[in-house]
Amino acid sequence: MRILGIDPGLGTLGWGVIDTDGVKHRVVQYGAILTTPGEALPQRLRAIFKSVTQLMETFQPDEVAFEELFFSKNITTGMAVSAARGVALVAVAEKTDNLFEYTPMQIKQAITGYGKADKHQIQTMVRMMLSLGEIPRPDDAADALAVAITHANSMRAGQMFKIK
Amino acid sequence: MRILGIDPGLGTLGWGVIDTDGVKHRVVQYGAILTTPGEALPQRLRAIFKSVTQLMETFQPDEVAFEELFFSKNITTGMAVSAARGVALVAVAEKTDNLFEYTPMQIKQAITGYGKADKHQIQTMVRMMLSLGEIPRPDDAADALAVAITHANSMRAGQMFKIK
Repeated sequence: MRILGIDPGLGTLGWGVIDTDGVKHRVVQYGAILTTPGEALPQRLRAIFKSVTQLMETFQPDEVAFEELFFSKNITTGMAVSAARGVALVAVAEKTDNLFEYTPMQIKQAITGYGKADKHQIQTMVRMMLSLGEIPRPDDAADALAVAITHANSMRAGQMFKIK
Repeated sequence: MRILGIDPGLGTLGWGVIDTDGVKHRVVQYGAILTTPGEALPQRLRAIFKSVTQLMETFQPDEVAFEELFFSKNITTGMAVSAARGVALVAVAEKTDNLFEYTPMQIKQAITGYGKADKHQIQTMVRMMLSLGEIPRPDDAADALAVAITHANSMRAGQMFKIK
């Protein structure tokens, strides 16, 4: 089974693809979709839509897991990230109904067994779980791989969170 | 010149198309895109994307004006509306770069000459300005026509607000 993990954002949207048999996970590829703050919002959102569509076509994931938005205190940022997430959801939903979502705390718990693990602990575990030589960069890609692993482990535990 | 006005929302997205020579405006059509709360968010956003794409193809507007989001105190609602707006922006941006946005206060000012006009005053003015027999329904469609008229008048005054 192939899982695409997405850490949504407007300036940087992290993504990571893993293959899993439910126990062992293998990284396929990861990266980040970047948009420039100088561009107009509609063009940035359009670039995200196109890039996520390309990811879906290239990797043909069976299921897609999003990191749930951590709502920032900055309303303008929150609206921009919500818009980017919405656009990514549509690009994914064009190809599959299997969309899931996990909170940062669920991800920390699934990856390290500890709901308050710090960023570095998560990234180190992601590196080890995927037998990578180094921590994936940028951070958003590591986060996307973490949510993909979380979904893989949640499937085994029968505790998946579908986006409603 | 043909203008599409959009009042973004997840459950109800109002739209209205007018033709204008800069002074007189004529309504072409108006309506609302509805999505059901029972459906999953990705499917609702996808329906909005498809419907806005269809509006763009059917009416081929030269310019598109959005009502700026009035940020609700309910964060969940705000995120949902931001997502719907983001999806509508992408559907529009696929066809034109001419995207504009006006705040509720700018719309009230443009339509009634008074920044604190109430909903009924706006709707009555929209009905009169477009020589309609009755006030457009639903309210979201009337709001969408109001932002389209606001953009038409702003063009004459040389005070357009492009979405950045």
